[in-house]
Amino acid sequence: MSENPQLNADGSLRHLLTIDGLPSSLLTRILDTAEGFVAVNDQEVRKVPLLRGKAIFNLFFEPSTRTRTTFEIAAKRLSADVINLNISASSQSKGETLLDTVDNLSAMQADMFVVRHAQSGAAHMIARHVAPHIHVINAGDGRHAHPTQGLLDMFTIRRYKGEFHNLCVAIVGDVLHSRVARSQIHALTTLGVPEVRVIAPRTLLPVGISQMGVQVFHDLAQGLKGVDVVIILRLQNERMRGARLPSPQEYFRYYGLTPQKLAHAKPDAIVMHPGPMNRGIEIDSAVADGQQSVILPQVTYGIAVRMAVMSMLAGN
Amino acid sequence: MSENPQLNADGSLRHLLTIDGLPSSLLTRILDTAEGFVAVNDQEVRKVPLLRGKAIFNLFFEPSTRTRTTFEIAAKRLSADVINLNISASSQSKGETLLDTVDNLSAMQADMFVVRHAQSGAAHMIARHVAPHIHVINAGDGRHAHPTQGLLDMFTIRRYKGEFHNLCVAIVGDVLHSRVARSQIHALTTLGVPEVRVIAPRTLLPVGISQMGVQVFHDLAQGLKGVDVVIILRLQNERMRGARLPSPQEYFRYYGLTPQKLAHAKPDAIVMHPGPMNRGIEIDSAVADGQQSVILPQVTYGIAVRMAVMSMLAGN
Amino acid sequence: MSENPQLNADGSLRHLLTIDGLPSSLLTRILDTAEGFVAVNDQEVRKVPLLRGKAIFNLFFEPSTRTRTTFEIAAKRLSADVINLNISASSQSKGETLLDTVDNLSAMQADMFVVRHAQSGAAHMIARHVAPHIHVINAGDGRHAHPTQGLLDMFTIRRYKGEFHNLCVAIVGDVLHSRVARSQIHALTTLGVPEVRVIAPRTLLPVGISQMGVQVFHDLAQGLKGVDVVIILRLQNERMRGARLPSPQEYFRYYGLTPQKLAHAKPDAIVMHPGPMNRGIEIDSAVADGQQSVILPQVTYGIAVRMAVMSMLAGN
Repeated sequence: MSENPQLNADGSLRHLLTIDGLPSSLLTRILDTAEGFVAVNDQEVRKVPLLRGKAIFNLFFEPSTRTRTTFEIAAKRLSADVINLNISASSQSKGETLLDTVDNLSAMQADMFVVRHAQSGAAHMIARHVAPHIHVINAGDGRHAHPTQGLLDMFTIRRYKGEFHNLCVAIVGDVLHSRVARSQIHALTTLGVPEVRVIAPRTLLPVGISQMGVQVFHDLAQGLKGVDVVIILRLQNERMRGARLPSPQEYFRYYGLTPQKLAHAKPDAIVMHPGPMNRGIEIDSAVADGQQSVILPQVTYGIAVRMAVMSMLAGN
Repeated sequence: MSENPQLNADGSLRHLLTIDGLPSSLLTRILDTAEGFVAVNDQEVRKVPLLRGKAIFNLFFEPSTRTRTTFEIAAKRLSADVINLNISASSQSKGETLLDTVDNLSAMQADMFVVRHAQSGAAHMIARHVAPHIHVINAGDGRHAHPTQGLLDMFTIRRYKGEFHNLCVAIVGDVLHSRVARSQIHALTTLGVPEVRVIAPRTLLPVGISQMGVQVFHDLAQGLKGVDVVIILRLQNERMRGARLPSPQEYFRYYGLTPQKLAHAKPDAIVMHPGPMNRGIEIDSAVADGQQSVILPQVTYGIAVRMAVMSMLAGN
Repeated sequence: MSENPQLNADGSLRHLLTIDGLPSSLLTRILDTAEGFVAVNDQEVRKVPLLRGKAIFNLFFEPSTRTRTTFEIAAKRLSADVINLNISASSQSKGETLLDTVDNLSAMQADMFVVRHAQSGAAHMIARHVAPHIHVINAGDGRHAHPTQGLLDMFTIRRYKGEFHNLCVAIVGDVLHSRVARSQIHALTTLGVPEVRVIAPRTLLPVGISQMGVQVFHDLAQGLKGVDVVIILRLQNERMRGARLPSPQEYFRYYGLTPQKLAHAKPDAIVMHPGPMNRGIEIDSAVADGQQSVILPQVTYGIAVRMAVMSMLAGN
């Protein structure tokens, strides 16, 4: 266990880089901790002093206002000092290397880095490099992982479905380019979900997907049959035209989640989406805004989950 | 009264979208509340815990460092957590709709949105959409309204002139394109100012201006005769050349406020400007920096007025 | 002494604009104060309430994430409210003058401005303009000065060498374009360093350098002989090609600090660099990451020194 760079020798969390390799007990502990923060966020004064005086750096080498904002709010509700750094425009343009930037910020007594980077492995590289008292959270690296998204999805599923061991979960869409899908599949299988399906055209599935312990479907109606949870993936704009897909309209026709398609799932199935949604492409507005959608609760729980991870990493 | 989306059923303020339609008693209550915050801002420690743990989002779809800064300072002095979002560059470019963005931020347990948008009506649309516990402040929407600017102007006038019912106030300049002018006219007439004048070339006046209860002048000297308050409007750069105006020099010659022109007003008349000023175009430096100018006190009172509005909306 | 705009009549610090003209006793007092903040930054909760409720504006007319971040962290650890303003993109583009911007922010009850500007003298101009209770820190103005950098360098030297009066210090590189070098030379000579050397090609030395009380060397090995402290300056990218320098490779060959060159200094000499480094141009990685390098401690002490200056200016 000590080989996993995310874990301390005693099995506690040192960094959060990927869900892959984290034991079920640890995932459960994160979800349990997040329950307490849901309560904090419902208080009149949404604030606890757990990380007072800690310096948390949002290191965004790739812009993402939405994700950065969730981490910023989570950190502020923990009373940390938050510094937002959009790095593309700055030091990097002065020719400083990534690790020199990290060394410099570490020397300012950083306690935590929340890292978003277009390159897979960037957060790992930083985690390997920093001093023992500094913690790293991967907020999305290339096509690799986005573990807090995976965790908030698990939290949402547990909140609505109670447990994992009797569920059938379908992930729909561009699995090939999705770091979110990877994190979700790892989390679902680790937490004991017996049936995980991916539903996508062949061109949007990675080679070797079936070795991840999932069942593959190419037909949406068939794949949704009897599922408890439907997770819709975002179709990146840049994928919509080109060799892999004929057109957004064509995609919607075959893989867009409409009320008719959703009717194949269990009547109490929930619908999830990591956001931001492309309405009318991967999801119909009637579903996105419908009774079965838990897309906005996902966002709410995302704050609590990030508070849980941050407090477990840097709290006392 | 319950039809006004800005007001709760009991007549208290739910949102601040426009001064139009707000009763005089409520405007007065805001100004009275602001008096207390002037004192807070003069303290050694300029901070009160009224909004501790509240999350205030500065949603700026149009850049304005100056206005954003005033709201940021006001919120921080109330101990709120402030998140600045410059939206043009982010989610919107990913194709997310305005209301999806708002829904997402609301799901992060936002307590208040301060909205600046190039489209008239944007803040109203958001206010109609959000859950009952979320409050919206319009920080400028298109040509429509900028109510906190209007309120700080009223606060400034009351501070220097004591009351409203015996005043003559002149608004000079580009009324046609000014959301500030609209807010000012509504506020002045509601608070009982008996004589409100607008002074501008025909090309910079909106159709139907005289139905707003104002007197129209095209000659600056004539219009300023005997006034107690002169409000100079900013001439937007993009208006300075083109069909409506011959040149900045020409504009200054006829409508720029010089000491000579100001001499037509009452000797104790005050001069106001919402900033940023174009010196030598709508106002001469000798006036801007002169004895009668209250342009910088306007800025100071603007913080207190914004603290008042924020605390009335989200405070307990 | 009252003629120095940086000092109050009683000799205490009102602004920090340049090290030039500050008495040795005051420099020493800043360094002594910073010692206390090194301890604060090593605490579990890195926070003191000294500047609670104070508003500190980071006025950056020239982008510098690194420097801005150090001031932001320092201010937050003192519990101040920090407002970051990147001015190039905003008010200035609306045609407002620098002093109007400063007047406006002052009217928002600013307590301190941290100013970075491409023009030499900008911070001085602002300091001359503001009301008596407002303090200005020069965070770099053109080629002129960057006093907190100079002070953190002195702090670092004192930490490693104990005292100043027995040292030989060499500054290597582009002295001509360096505001850092100017600040360092003033500080070193004021604090009693008996021998200050500059080592650079003729094209990168200002006219009249020898009148600053330094010895000039053009050969790196010769200049480093017996020194206690080596300060490497950053070679700006824009200098690397052009009339003054043949090429980055050529520069490295003659002036890049390698382990071989460093061997000419005393065995316990320390190596400093203001960052960000150009590895392989002005400094070899083996030196930058080597035993004698104190480049990262410089960053750490930089926070403490900035906290010291801020608290001495605005604290009670």
